[in-house]
Amino acid sequence: MTHTSAYQALTHTFARLHRFSHLGAIAGWDQAAMMPSKGNDARAAALAELGVLTHGIITAPQLKEQLDAAEQENLDELQRANLREMRREWAQANLLPAELVEAKTLAGARCEHAWRSQRPANDWKGFLENLREVVKLSREEGRLLAEASGGSRYDALMDKYEPGMKSAEIERIFTEVKSWLPGLIDRARAKQASETVIEPVGPFAVAQQRALGVEAMKLLRFDFDGGRLDVSSHPFCGGVPEDVRITTRYRDDDFVQSLMGIVHETGHARYEQNLPKDWLEQPLGRARSMGIHESQSLSFEMQLGRSPAFLQLIAPLIRSHFGEQPAFALDNLQRLYSRVQPGYIRVDADELCYPAHVILRFEIERALMDGEIEAEDIPALWDEKMMAYLGVDTRGNYTNGCMQDIHWTDGGFGYFPSYTLGAMYAAQYFASLRRAEPELDAKVAAGNLEPIFNWLNANIWSQGSRWSTDELVRRATGETLNPAHFKAHLERRYLGV
Amino acid sequence: MTHTSAYQALTHTFARLHRFSHLGAIAGWDQAAMMPSKGNDARAAALAELGVLTHGIITAPQLKEQLDAAEQENLDELQRANLREMRREWAQANLLPAELVEAKTLAGARCEHAWRSQRPANDWKGFLENLREVVKLSREEGRLLAEASGGSRYDALMDKYEPGMKSAEIERIFTEVKSWLPGLIDRARAKQASETVIEPVGPFAVAQQRALGVEAMKLLRFDFDGGRLDVSSHPFCGGVPEDVRITTRYRDDDFVQSLMGIVHETGHARYEQNLPKDWLEQPLGRARSMGIHESQSLSFEMQLGRSPAFLQLIAPLIRSHFGEQPAFALDNLQRLYSRVQPGYIRVDADELCYPAHVILRFEIERALMDGEIEAEDIPALWDEKMMAYLGVDTRGNYTNGCMQDIHWTDGGFGYFPSYTLGAMYAAQYFASLRRAEPELDAKVAAGNLEPIFNWLNANIWSQGSRWSTDELVRRATGETLNPAHFKAHLERRYLGV
Repeated sequence: MTHTSAYQALTHTFARLHRFSHLGAIAGWDQAAMMPSKGNDARAAALAELGVLTHGIITAPQLKEQLDAAEQENLDELQRANLREMRREWAQANLLPAELVEAKTLAGARCEHAWRSQRPANDWKGFLENLREVVKLSREEGRLLAEASGGSRYDALMDKYEPGMKSAEIERIFTEVKSWLPGLIDRARAKQASETVIEPVGPFAVAQQRALGVEAMKLLRFDFDGGRLDVSSHPFCGGVPEDVRITTRYRDDDFVQSLMGIVHETGHARYEQNLPKDWLEQPLGRARSMGIHESQSLSFEMQLGRSPAFLQLIAPLIRSHFGEQPAFALDNLQRLYSRVQPGYIRVDADELCYPAHVILRFEIERALMDGEIEAEDIPALWDEKMMAYLGVDTRGNYTNGCMQDIHWTDGGFGYFPSYTLGAMYAAQYFASLRRAEPELDAKVAAGNLEPIFNWLNANIWSQGSRWSTDELVRRATGETLNPAHFKAHLERRYLGV
Repeated sequence: MTHTSAYQALTHTFARLHRFSHLGAIAGWDQAAMMPSKGNDARAAALAELGVLTHGIITAPQLKEQLDAAEQENLDELQRANLREMRREWAQANLLPAELVEAKTLAGARCEHAWRSQRPANDWKGFLENLREVVKLSREEGRLLAEASGGSRYDALMDKYEPGMKSAEIERIFTEVKSWLPGLIDRARAKQASETVIEPVGPFAVAQQRALGVEAMKLLRFDFDGGRLDVSSHPFCGGVPEDVRITTRYRDDDFVQSLMGIVHETGHARYEQNLPKDWLEQPLGRARSMGIHESQSLSFEMQLGRSPAFLQLIAPLIRSHFGEQPAFALDNLQRLYSRVQPGYIRVDADELCYPAHVILRFEIERALMDGEIEAEDIPALWDEKMMAYLGVDTRGNYTNGCMQDIHWTDGGFGYFPSYTLGAMYAAQYFASLRRAEPELDAKVAAGNLEPIFNWLNANIWSQGSRWSTDELVRRATGETLNPAHFKAHLERRYLGV
């Protein structure tokens, strides 16, 4: 390691920021998983104070000088990559005037708060009024970010979640997906029409569901000395890399969704638990992007979790907790976990329909941010695209249509593509893995998941933010993002080809 | 409200400190009740960073000027009391040089860490080596604090926990207690020698114990919308006033201790939950002292919880969770909860023996801080006093003798008197309460605890740190601390006089 003053000073500042973000992460987890209702105002005030503090630290004038000076210093390759990531975090905090950040936070909070009652009331008009302000401020944010980075406003917003990705590339990929996805959905549904699926018969006691979830997490090598499983109304993976907190929710009439939700969050968790230990306090030690994060949860849930080989491991655990049922036969579990049924709601969508939900949102939010449409144009576009891609009629149904997601309410434009990028990366990893391990499914069925964990650890987890996303994926799989693997995976699973 | 600039600036600074301390309190609770082992280093680093931050805020040079300027401003009575408490917090942070604080923290951490293995190994010699350094630095702390406040080093250290209390006053009180306590213990034991006590027969499922504890908390009006009950290895009351976190520990062969432990922590919790709402972000809104805090937990545990009237309410709950047992008869429960048995360990001591444990510690720590003895003199004094006050032989038994407590390991000299002050205040409150409510026990037995809560809320909880301790107690009971009430309570309960 070369020790030089500007770079060293930066590492101290970013370590401080990391420690403060630790407190924010634990307080945020607690807020969702533990906190009783009356704690809310004091918690919000405490977290806002922390936000003011960390904003002040990362916008201190000397940081710009130190970043520039460090560029001239004699740094090794890892330090240089860390410096690149420092500059990225610095830019995101410093390119926006404090007044805009505050105005967007307030408008987003107002819109989201009202949305919580407007959505069940199907009140698009009321929602639209608040959304217009969020759209206006998000466009302004995109404009300022794009001034520095080039590209469109939408590109600049998406870059917060997917560094380096461009919307032209997303459009190219999604256009291709649209050319085959509706047909694939139709064929899969035709194939499944003749299959009988037996529903599990509840109730399923929450304590048993939790015990089953913990067993699944152990099978997936979640480190319980460095993390926990709890309950929250919206499942998430939070905490800090040294202490990862995942959550789920239980319904006593259904364990199927909760179980696979735990498998999903465990994928996020193992990424965090295996980020490079020596770099955890630095930007280099963080997960690469939202798409890469989602590629871990979807590697666990879609590539591994819903595979016949893995279900073969899980089936006896299910029976040991809930007794024998016809529904727990292996072939029935496989059918349960691969049913295709277009519907209104993205978060409830199956693997095959999910990309359609993402593509329509991408198309709408991109046009909205780039000024091709206005907020009032959303419902008509939503109805048209839902019908075209999924054959679902959403006219007049805002509740389960364009008002269903939280993302736009507080200005999270540019996030949606990450979900489907993650699914595509995951399919690409497993194509590589299967080339390296031709007997992968047999090993999984025999309880040996190590080849998967070893591959993900060596290629993704341990790499943190060392490489750009393209470079990370190229080093891991020999090529940059190639959606053909995703298509092949879907055809194999849903058409058996 | 008068708005004036220096005072206003101070309220902003103290509100900021309060919000940061919120994050520290929740992270601290999480560390004890939730955090898995591998989270420890990162948590310690995050909390240390927070400590550096808040120390920097409260030692900023302008605070001294603002405190002085605010004294000249036109403040109302509550603002003036708040300013007094601000100055108190400021003084405690500013009278000590940072090097001393750091040296004491390090020496304390080293001593405590080693103590965790030295105590079970009965290794007094090893412990003494570390303790000497802690004693040296604590004396230095006391010297610097005493320079500003007057009085002895021990007075200055005790003042951190019991503002305004002097060791001469404690000595006067404890000398009087020593004149009657050993005799009272002997007579109580003689009286109990002829009683038969039936032990409850376990096991007692933890889930049932928890449910029973929650019912007791509801009976005691713990607000579950503003707090939680969880498990930790050392029970405590933590969190923040808006969201109070109490903990207990369960043993499946005994529910008696855990249940009364929950009653105890609920007393602390209700104090916190009912501090003055409008002042929670300011020093005026905090609990008055450690002794007054303990007076709340002991009002709940000793005055109310172990009273026959309250046990009459609890007995049916116990039976509903654990079935019928001879041990659950009301008179047997009363005997279980008032057994007197001198022993080695302070935290396991009964109500009657507890003050003896405190008095011997006070005498030793006072002499140690004021330079009358050295650390190596502790064991001989301990042995002598344990024999004199409790008839217990501790010679050679450091593990269950002078090495049993955590307080001295990290320099917490001056804290012990608060425990017995709390017991005395609690007895004094209930003497007042009984004068105002002659039918108090009958009301409690009938399930009406409101007279107690109303009295505590009006006289203690809602007052925060508005008054000095003496003034608070005088306003509540018509006199300052008067240990005669404590003696009368013990004689009534243990001798039936």
